[in-house]
Amino acid sequence: MGLMKLISQLDALDHKMHGTDFLHTWKKSDDQISATLLTAQILKKLYEEGKSCKVFKSGLAISNFRDNSTRTRFSFASASNLLGLTVQDLNESTSQIAHGETVRETANMISFLTEVIGIRDDMYLGEGHKYMCEVGEALDDGYKNGVLHQRPSIVNLQCDIDHPTQSMADLSHLINYYGGVEKLQGKKIAMTWAYSPSYGKPLSVPQAIIGLMSRFGMDVVLAHPEGYNLIPETLKISEKNAKKSGGSFKVVKSMEEAFKGADIVYPKSWAPYSVMQTRTPLLLKKDLEGLKNLEKQCLANNAKHKDWECTEKMMKLTKGGKALYMHCLPADISDVSCKEGEVSAKVFDKYRIETYKEAGYKPFVIAAMMLLSKFKDPARTLASLNKRRFAE
Amino acid sequence: MGLMKLISQLDALDHKMHGTDFLHTWKKSDDQISATLLTAQILKKLYEEGKSCKVFKSGLAISNFRDNSTRTRFSFASASNLLGLTVQDLNESTSQIAHGETVRETANMISFLTEVIGIRDDMYLGEGHKYMCEVGEALDDGYKNGVLHQRPSIVNLQCDIDHPTQSMADLSHLINYYGGVEKLQGKKIAMTWAYSPSYGKPLSVPQAIIGLMSRFGMDVVLAHPEGYNLIPETLKISEKNAKKSGGSFKVVKSMEEAFKGADIVYPKSWAPYSVMQTRTPLLLKKDLEGLKNLEKQCLANNAKHKDWECTEKMMKLTKGGKALYMHCLPADISDVSCKEGEVSAKVFDKYRIETYKEAGYKPFVIAAMMLLSKFKDPARTLASLNKRRFAE
Amino acid sequence: MGLMKLISQLDALDHKMHGTDFLHTWKKSDDQISATLLTAQILKKLYEEGKSCKVFKSGLAISNFRDNSTRTRFSFASASNLLGLTVQDLNESTSQIAHGETVRETANMISFLTEVIGIRDDMYLGEGHKYMCEVGEALDDGYKNGVLHQRPSIVNLQCDIDHPTQSMADLSHLINYYGGVEKLQGKKIAMTWAYSPSYGKPLSVPQAIIGLMSRFGMDVVLAHPEGYNLIPETLKISEKNAKKSGGSFKVVKSMEEAFKGADIVYPKSWAPYSVMQTRTPLLLKKDLEGLKNLEKQCLANNAKHKDWECTEKMMKLTKGGKALYMHCLPADISDVSCKEGEVSAKVFDKYRIETYKEAGYKPFVIAAMMLLSKFKDPARTLASLNKRRFAE
Repeated sequence: MGLMKLISQLDALDHKMHGTDFLHTWKKSDDQISATLLTAQILKKLYEEGKSCKVFKSGLAISNFRDNSTRTRFSFASASNLLGLTVQDLNESTSQIAHGETVRETANMISFLTEVIGIRDDMYLGEGHKYMCEVGEALDDGYKNGVLHQRPSIVNLQCDIDHPTQSMADLSHLINYYGGVEKLQGKKIAMTWAYSPSYGKPLSVPQAIIGLMSRFGMDVVLAHPEGYNLIPETLKISEKNAKKSGGSFKVVKSMEEAFKGADIVYPKSWAPYSVMQTRTPLLLKKDLEGLKNLEKQCLANNAKHKDWECTEKMMKLTKGGKALYMHCLPADISDVSCKEGEVSAKVFDKYRIETYKEAGYKPFVIAAMMLLSKFKDPARTLASLNKRRFAE
Repeated sequence: MGLMKLISQLDALDHKMHGTDFLHTWKKSDDQISATLLTAQILKKLYEEGKSCKVFKSGLAISNFRDNSTRTRFSFASASNLLGLTVQDLNESTSQIAHGETVRETANMISFLTEVIGIRDDMYLGEGHKYMCEVGEALDDGYKNGVLHQRPSIVNLQCDIDHPTQSMADLSHLINYYGGVEKLQGKKIAMTWAYSPSYGKPLSVPQAIIGLMSRFGMDVVLAHPEGYNLIPETLKISEKNAKKSGGSFKVVKSMEEAFKGADIVYPKSWAPYSVMQTRTPLLLKKDLEGLKNLEKQCLANNAKHKDWECTEKMMKLTKGGKALYMHCLPADISDVSCKEGEVSAKVFDKYRIETYKEAGYKPFVIAAMMLLSKFKDPARTLASLNKRRFAE
Repeated sequence: MGLMKLISQLDALDHKMHGTDFLHTWKKSDDQISATLLTAQILKKLYEEGKSCKVFKSGLAISNFRDNSTRTRFSFASASNLLGLTVQDLNESTSQIAHGETVRETANMISFLTEVIGIRDDMYLGEGHKYMCEVGEALDDGYKNGVLHQRPSIVNLQCDIDHPTQSMADLSHLINYYGGVEKLQGKKIAMTWAYSPSYGKPLSVPQAIIGLMSRFGMDVVLAHPEGYNLIPETLKISEKNAKKSGGSFKVVKSMEEAFKGADIVYPKSWAPYSVMQTRTPLLLKKDLEGLKNLEKQCLANNAKHKDWECTEKMMKLTKGGKALYMHCLPADISDVSCKEGEVSAKVFDKYRIETYKEAGYKPFVIAAMMLLSKFKDPARTLASLNKRRFAE
């Protein structure tokens, strides 16, 4: 589809995301989700046609990674660079924050010429989202009181609850793979737990997937061993979404059941909800002994479920034996990155290129979130990019 | 006031800061101080009107933080970004500098395409300023000998003696708060020591404040407990400035006396001069035991002066009970960031927004220092920004 | 020479470096070497004339420093900035790479909007170049399979075998010093080992120098104590080059012999080949005890050769007593950065400014490598820069 047609489609939507943060997909309307997907697609097309996407004259994009990251870090850097912003990393260890400075103060101090703040804070159940809201309120306070000339918008780069840049990139991949969002109607997607020799992986990816994919008329199936349940609220959201979109949502107890007849499978490890609950206070009080015991106990428990592996045999259960395999990467690949993991080397290798493409949507999804939150008339802004040629 | 009028005012001054470093405010003439304030104001206005302030085609702005920093780091990054420079951090731990490379060599090696170098080196009394001068001489040598095509200018982001980006931001705040630099004439400002449970805080902020504010006809009062005196030279400078500007400068022995009738109060902790003198050789020879003993002794000494706290009762002593409270942030707020600190939560909260605004001038002050040191005809450069529209 | 004349010269060469990596100089044709030197010269001239060299609309330049670096880090940052790219550092310690992610995957994940990847990996004999090739293959795979819209090109910022950005900067310096590449014909250059109190220095600089300088009809002499030989393959390359270019290449056993009648001397320490071979497996298995023993043994062996120092007496042996002294910096200067080192303070000081100028070519050499690998018609691209004026 031509660029101008896509831009017209964007213009026809009732999005109004200017001045808002992107925290959870389920807090965004259908039109807002569509606008984000469309804007990402338009930016990708502009980029591939060699057109400049610099919409900002200047300005900082602050990244605050409270957990390690490669692909999200580079996606955020790429998105910022694409739009004309400069990344400045807020490294809490070399800053004065350790002095006991309040979140409210820091948020203002770094924001005088800042357009966007991207935050990853996914390790503490009950903490990450809370922190992002606190930053948001601080920015509101600063903006309202004339401290800040502009209100930087927050992009959630993974919290304890949702991982919207991941799920939106995954969704972009599905739309492209099947040739349109309407093609997702009736497709069965299995979001399943898988065995991994590591522990403490966040719950945000599975929660993000069920919370978003349930909005497009898909049959969303969640599967995990007993005890590995997600935050209950996210299941309720998924049920509600499924009902509204004409799809379905259910939880089953085995990988086999989930895979049966699935069009799409997303096998990925995560920590049990109860472990994450126990872990947060231990982390906060830095109880290393307690954490070590919890890890040992958790790994032992994980080890009971090594049969939750996405093997060729498991894949045969899917529709026509050829469901699309998805993963947020890096996957724990048996005999490659670990002895026994989430997925067999054969299955992963078959879909490797597809998972890389899946990841390739993330920079544009982040750029779309940034652009929509900062420009009042994004369709017009994008149209001007399409016309603009790089000055020689 | 309109932008063109401000630019004309700048043009009328005898500034000539091209090719110079900004190390101490007292080494700058009155016109140079005015030019810096004006340029900061013009850049702020241009930014707020949505005009591009990119005056550099390309180039690096190197930051060298030898001490932790949040607000100055982000202010420097914001200023660089605003003018079109890219920040490159000189991280001495991941560089080859540990090999015993000379300052002279490093200064040249990093500067081939560099426009500005910002340095924070405030921990060692007798060292920070010396280091900046050494870097400056190395750059002179490289430029003179054809190693460097341009001579990068140095911006002092806090040394052991002065903190000019802080004091100039503070001054900008005062000018804006009172509606003009001429309104400062006759105002009483109290720069006082305050209790803090930490130790080893640099002397550069109080020295910067008395050294700069004494130039505008204000009644500058410095107060601190016995032993917490500043570098004697900075007091002499302040006395001289006060005399020349028609103001006054005096040192008193209690917070109460300083606050009495004050229009502005700046209560802030710092380490005793003698402790800083003892500390430098210990730091240089990494005598951890000696440092620990010194810290213990110093904290014990500090603890005798917990009554040096900016409380509501203390504020009642000021003019009409409503002096403007200032701080470079982060403040040690009693019952917020520590048990007993520099300021009570009630007082701080009343002036919180004002202190944030105070901090908001720093990016523009730094940008002004950069621009004035690198452009021969800054008024013309700024005028062209005012006319330029962002290419669409 | 005027810019347009240089650009015409470039255009006349058969270079075709678009889409290629720059790993070893000896894998580049004579025209490709000339094109790189010319492009560096053109960019330097454009820069010095105040013309914008921004050829990229946007895009990342990733740096991956697996060893410490100051000058190469800043040269890479300067080159990227000059051309309009934004540096994003791949810090393997704060990324998820520790999870056991494959090189193939990481290379793709960071490259969605990336134009160039600069890598320094010089510590492990047999590893650095291998790693760069692995990254290159991963990028080919991603580009071929539609994961990447563009194939980022790799610039070798020092591997275990070659250090092309250094040797090309050194060569640029020689060409400028003598007034033309044709003037190098018949000049004698002595690449000699020199004593240093440190150990484990890579072999890549001497290998780079003999491998490149042998292409211009020079008499290249390599000298080192017994056991300090280089990778044999690089000697064969140098011999072949010398034969083809009408120069010569030989290995001698003393610094005196090498210096005798030399026009240029390059005295620099490196570790013995056998030590580097023993060291690699120890490093890989993190055998700290083994490494410590090896270091002790190696330093003791080094100490037998303290007479390999570039002193004034040694310099008297060179042609007319005034050979050009070169070094990649930082040099181990006797009585300055160490007690006894590679060069006496008197000799170094005499040539200090020349070594700084030598280093000053590196940013432009790197920029040239970037530009040639990414633009199909570099002469046209450069010509457009020459005409373009900075928009006001």
